[in-house]
Amino acid sequence: MIELSENQYGKSRVRLMKVERGAPQHRVFEWNVEVWLTGDFTSCFLEGDNTLILPTDTMKNTVYSLARSSGAKNIEEFALELITYFLATQPQIDGAGARIGSTGWSPIQTTAGTHATAFVQTGPEITTATATQSRNAAPEIISGLDQLTILKTAKSAFSHFKKDKLTTLRETEDRLLGTVMTANWTHTRASSDFDRIRVSVRDALLATFAGHDSKSVQQTLYAMGKAALEAAPEISAIHLSMPNKHCNLVDLSPFGQDNPNLIFVPTDEPHGSIQATVRRVE
Amino acid sequence: MIELSENQYGKSRVRLMKVERGAPQHRVFEWNVEVWLTGDFTSCFLEGDNTLILPTDTMKNTVYSLARSSGAKNIEEFALELITYFLATQPQIDGAGARIGSTGWSPIQTTAGTHATAFVQTGPEITTATATQSRNAAPEIISGLDQLTILKTAKSAFSHFKKDKLTTLRETEDRLLGTVMTANWTHTRASSDFDRIRVSVRDALLATFAGHDSKSVQQTLYAMGKAALEAAPEISAIHLSMPNKHCNLVDLSPFGQDNPNLIFVPTDEPHGSIQATVRRVE
Amino acid sequence: MIELSENQYGKSRVRLMKVERGAPQHRVFEWNVEVWLTGDFTSCFLEGDNTLILPTDTMKNTVYSLARSSGAKNIEEFALELITYFLATQPQIDGAGARIGSTGWSPIQTTAGTHATAFVQTGPEITTATATQSRNAAPEIISGLDQLTILKTAKSAFSHFKKDKLTTLRETEDRLLGTVMTANWTHTRASSDFDRIRVSVRDALLATFAGHDSKSVQQTLYAMGKAALEAAPEISAIHLSMPNKHCNLVDLSPFGQDNPNLIFVPTDEPHGSIQATVRRVE
Amino acid sequence: MIELSENQYGKSRVRLMKVERGAPQHRVFEWNVEVWLTGDFTSCFLEGDNTLILPTDTMKNTVYSLARSSGAKNIEEFALELITYFLATQPQIDGAGARIGSTGWSPIQTTAGTHATAFVQTGPEITTATATQSRNAAPEIISGLDQLTILKTAKSAFSHFKKDKLTTLRETEDRLLGTVMTANWTHTRASSDFDRIRVSVRDALLATFAGHDSKSVQQTLYAMGKAALEAAPEISAIHLSMPNKHCNLVDLSPFGQDNPNLIFVPTDEPHGSIQATVRRVE
Repeated sequence: MIELSENQYGKSRVRLMKVERGAPQHRVFEWNVEVWLTGDFTSCFLEGDNTLILPTDTMKNTVYSLARSSGAKNIEEFALELITYFLATQPQIDGAGARIGSTGWSPIQTTAGTHATAFVQTGPEITTATATQSRNAAPEIISGLDQLTILKTAKSAFSHFKKDKLTTLRETEDRLLGTVMTANWTHTRASSDFDRIRVSVRDALLATFAGHDSKSVQQTLYAMGKAALEAAPEISAIHLSMPNKHCNLVDLSPFGQDNPNLIFVPTDEPHGSIQATVRRVE
Repeated sequence: MIELSENQYGKSRVRLMKVERGAPQHRVFEWNVEVWLTGDFTSCFLEGDNTLILPTDTMKNTVYSLARSSGAKNIEEFALELITYFLATQPQIDGAGARIGSTGWSPIQTTAGTHATAFVQTGPEITTATATQSRNAAPEIISGLDQLTILKTAKSAFSHFKKDKLTTLRETEDRLLGTVMTANWTHTRASSDFDRIRVSVRDALLATFAGHDSKSVQQTLYAMGKAALEAAPEISAIHLSMPNKHCNLVDLSPFGQDNPNLIFVPTDEPHGSIQATVRRVE
Repeated sequence: MIELSENQYGKSRVRLMKVERGAPQHRVFEWNVEVWLTGDFTSCFLEGDNTLILPTDTMKNTVYSLARSSGAKNIEEFALELITYFLATQPQIDGAGARIGSTGWSPIQTTAGTHATAFVQTGPEITTATATQSRNAAPEIISGLDQLTILKTAKSAFSHFKKDKLTTLRETEDRLLGTVMTANWTHTRASSDFDRIRVSVRDALLATFAGHDSKSVQQTLYAMGKAALEAAPEISAIHLSMPNKHCNLVDLSPFGQDNPNLIFVPTDEPHGSIQATVRRVE
Repeated sequence: MIELSENQYGKSRVRLMKVERGAPQHRVFEWNVEVWLTGDFTSCFLEGDNTLILPTDTMKNTVYSLARSSGAKNIEEFALELITYFLATQPQIDGAGARIGSTGWSPIQTTAGTHATAFVQTGPEITTATATQSRNAAPEIISGLDQLTILKTAKSAFSHFKKDKLTTLRETEDRLLGTVMTANWTHTRASSDFDRIRVSVRDALLATFAGHDSKSVQQTLYAMGKAALEAAPEISAIHLSMPNKHCNLVDLSPFGQDNPNLIFVPTDEPHGSIQATVRRVE
């Protein structure tokens, strides 16, 4: 027999720009929102009965309507507001989720000063938040950052590793270490000072990355996760994905030149993939 | 206390072009390979002890070396060959995984005929295979396809849906239905005729998409999954992701023109996100 | 003194899906349109006087409105129709241009046959057309194709090249030759059988690429351009851009394996850039 | 008769990371380099004679070798150094060009201070420089920036524009104005203080964008170009491309909500395309 198993539906890439028209300094927020619903939609999948299906177009409208009325101070609160709304107004659903990616904008600064109503996009880093909730359960809120592209030019080695007959990599005590980091940390409470925690976690991640005497990406990743957990007692776990974006030392010896760790080829492929969760346990 | 939780490491975006120099017709295979290992690497993460860490560079070498000696007839067999090799040669690991994406190439055909040693890339569809195995357990093999971009211009409706105060979408009995499909089907055995099954599954998916009298993406998705399971008794489940890439009817009435479902704006964002697993049960 | 020099404005990425509802076989056309206008817009640039500025939003509307009423049989004719319309209705402009990129769609074919109202996107190749015209001059029409990704596994050498003290490349009599081709051919008349010419040019390009005994990308490019001009007397010139997307032979000797041109690493960067125009002269 | 017309060849996407290991503060430079050569290569194109063809692989090597020995203080000087080298060492060429795109990296700053050997990538803005030279002529150097993504939330109107029967756009005295700017300015001398000029030009562009009381993108573009030329007497012209990345006001009236320029949908397509050169004349 054939049956419907796990399923969900929703709307992705709902883009939103919100302007706060302060006096005199404006602020802008650019969010890319995804929302989804779960529940027993068997009648829809099997029989084409749409009476329980709130259109994804309405989910999009909901994002814009709530954005207008919302007092959310950050993406975590807005993600939570969205799923709370869906659970409250849609009795046919069992759960809801929302994920928001936020692109950074800063006031333009020139020799004329800080401009109150003009902005420059920052990046490539984006900040993220995901809220999910099953009916009659507590919401889960995960904050994150993505595409944080970082590099260290000292204190990174990789040696004494396992070798087999296909190993050609040379040991090194001094290499470049670069990554495009994704981090996701889980909050222990649905209501918290998400902005302050974000600042603490990000600072701990970056300071540890910069200062760590790295014997491997793995060791540095763990040290970063541990530092984040220590800096933010409100979070219970952090997942870090740190692809090893290799910078290969160029062999200049055919040209009679040395290359004491000065000239590299940065590459996007292939790349190492290192990821782990670091968790607080009782 | 803080501790290491789930983790894995490996190499991604290992690109490979393999040429079969037949007589006279050549064949080319372009694969993008990802491999990863799991196990107890606590000493690496916590202490920087690399003695259990096979470098990801060696994993890359393994892909190339095995590709040379391999007799694998398709990506499923090669993915399986990779993980079997790692489990056999690396006692320190508990599990291994490999995922391969294959870009299509066809012999160039012109008025001069079919060319034996020249090829044109097809697409955007790619074919995929993922093999994973934990030590002392059977391997799991999932075949798939990705970026299969399809559209139907008839037999697609969406009406009688749930409405709330934020609903503005109009009911329609005749709309365009387009998607960029991802499909993944799970094999019941690690050794099978993967190519024949792929042909059957893909044919069932496409024929059902084309012929289905659709009341919603959900209903069509389920019908497609069911047809695939019926066409291929060797698979136990299929997961389908069918984002609804909306084609919006252009309102030409301000210009005094009608638009009887002829002129549309295709859009990438926002898009509906519909996904489900259809499963065979006893 | 400071003054305004060359300028133009227009609308880009106007996306359009047009459905021909034949009986029984439908056809779909997906176009990405760019239109632009030139003229003396000094009063706008210098003084903010918009009275001569037709909004780019109206240009977008024009694309949709004309698409509805158009009898154009291909992208060349529709591009020409667009610029003719703007020159006829906008006396303030001196010139107009339109560029269209067309994504391919084919009817879905399964064991159940060819489906009349369901389609699969082909690619990555897209077809292009550009029409430009200055008032009181004849229009120029250029047809093209883009992202045609091709590869040859035989009859490609590169040897006897110039060497200097920084040259490390080895000569080869047998390499893979791959490219992502862009071609643009100029028509001698604004009214022509663009579809038939496209078939002839494309066939000549591909047959020559496949059959040519290549001593360099340059030589093959020229042979291809020459063949296209010979195949289509209605065109006066063809520009070809053929980046050399290198497939590097993997050195398997450290693993005790040979590699007689079987296993390669396809790369996107760095790549050779070879481009030239081949022209018919009296 | 058919003949070879304009042509060039070279190497693209040569990626380079250069580390300056100061004491204690390191600096990193990430460049993406393109180099090309022109000349009479007819014998190569027509006869497959490669004796005048320096391989593009050697051009790549040249980038790395010169990067090692170079004292260039910025991308303009390095681009110039590359083409000077090719013209000096390759008598068979008539001209050479180099284009460099530079990705920004800044020292990581945390509560622990500024880290001397760890960096975070900035962006999306990249800085660019192009140097070209024909033998026996002076080099031309163009500096630029690309992907500078800016937005203003006040002082932007678009009204009193030309209307025709297809115009539906409403006039507005207060809209968001966003663009992803590309700027290119031409230097009057091959030797100059490129870094200081860059700072002046960029500051003038941004301050004018921010402060300008805009009646159209065109008017603001011209004001920005004019300000750049006034700020940097060493440049003779500036070309600005300012696609109008529309932020559309969301109509919340169906939901009983007002929207006093607070909630917008940012879009990538379609977009306005406005570009012009502003030039200094005697």
